[in-house]
Amino acid sequence: MTEPTLGDTKVTQVGIIVRDIESKARAWSEILGLPMPEIIITDPVDKAQTEYNGKSTTARAKLAFFHMGQLEVELIEPMDGPSTWKDQLDGHGDSLHHIAFEIKGIQEKIAFLDSKGVPLVQRGEYTGGRYAYLDGVSQLGTVLELLEND
Amino acid sequence: MTEPTLGDTKVTQVGIIVRDIESKARAWSEILGLPMPEIIITDPVDKAQTEYNGKSTTARAKLAFFHMGQLEVELIEPMDGPSTWKDQLDGHGDSLHHIAFEIKGIQEKIAFLDSKGVPLVQRGEYTGGRYAYLDGVSQLGTVLELLEND
Repeated sequence: MTEPTLGDTKVTQVGIIVRDIESKARAWSEILGLPMPEIIITDPVDKAQTEYNGKSTTARAKLAFFHMGQLEVELIEPMDGPSTWKDQLDGHGDSLHHIAFEIKGIQEKIAFLDSKGVPLVQRGEYTGGRYAYLDGVSQLGTVLELLEND
Repeated sequence: MTEPTLGDTKVTQVGIIVRDIESKARAWSEILGLPMPEIIITDPVDKAQTEYNGKSTTARAKLAFFHMGQLEVELIEPMDGPSTWKDQLDGHGDSLHHIAFEIKGIQEKIAFLDSKGVPLVQRGEYTGGRYAYLDGVSQLGTVLELLEND
């Protein structure tokens, strides 16, 4: 079975959970010599339709992106309600959180991964697309994120 | 300050610490539809000259690599003596551990990062090159790995 099940296996993003995104973004910029990115805030729940463990959540996050070749490094500071972001910060402090793939057909990919013991933990919409986090820690050692851009 | 300080900012590898590499490698292969990789063991200390916190260590690891575009995903099962790998497993269980950059001039890059509060935690040799792990958790939210291939 060597046919990529997600359609593509190119990792496009690595996500890092941080307690203080301003200081961490400054450190990334200064230490690695990268342009300081804008810090953005995810949409509120009525627009993002954020769901965590199958229930609507007011969770939001501050985000900053560094473009590093094929990959972007995403810094994430959790805000407000329950989320996979907050779970990670509470459980592990500042730490790597996920690797992401850009895919098509997010619903069927979520169903496939769930059938393999990698369950959906959080999902939401953003301008131009949607994301899903799958809890792959017990099977794969990491959370996976699926990104579907329209 | 927007000149890449490491010479290149392309992330070439993401490392994941796992307790049981055989089962995790099988899961990666089956769930993502990737070829099952060979599982290799790092060289013993007399060849690898492994140092952890400035002292020689007998630590070794089982490794498996999945090639995913620009990036490789490295699974790491710690073995034997003290290491950053074992610290991560003891502290956080199966989890993402590092992102890696391929660089030239590892000694000066280590000195630069140390001057920025990102200290060397482990280093060693492998056939054709050498690696260094820098503890960037407090500054950047992650361990960095430098890889220098001859």
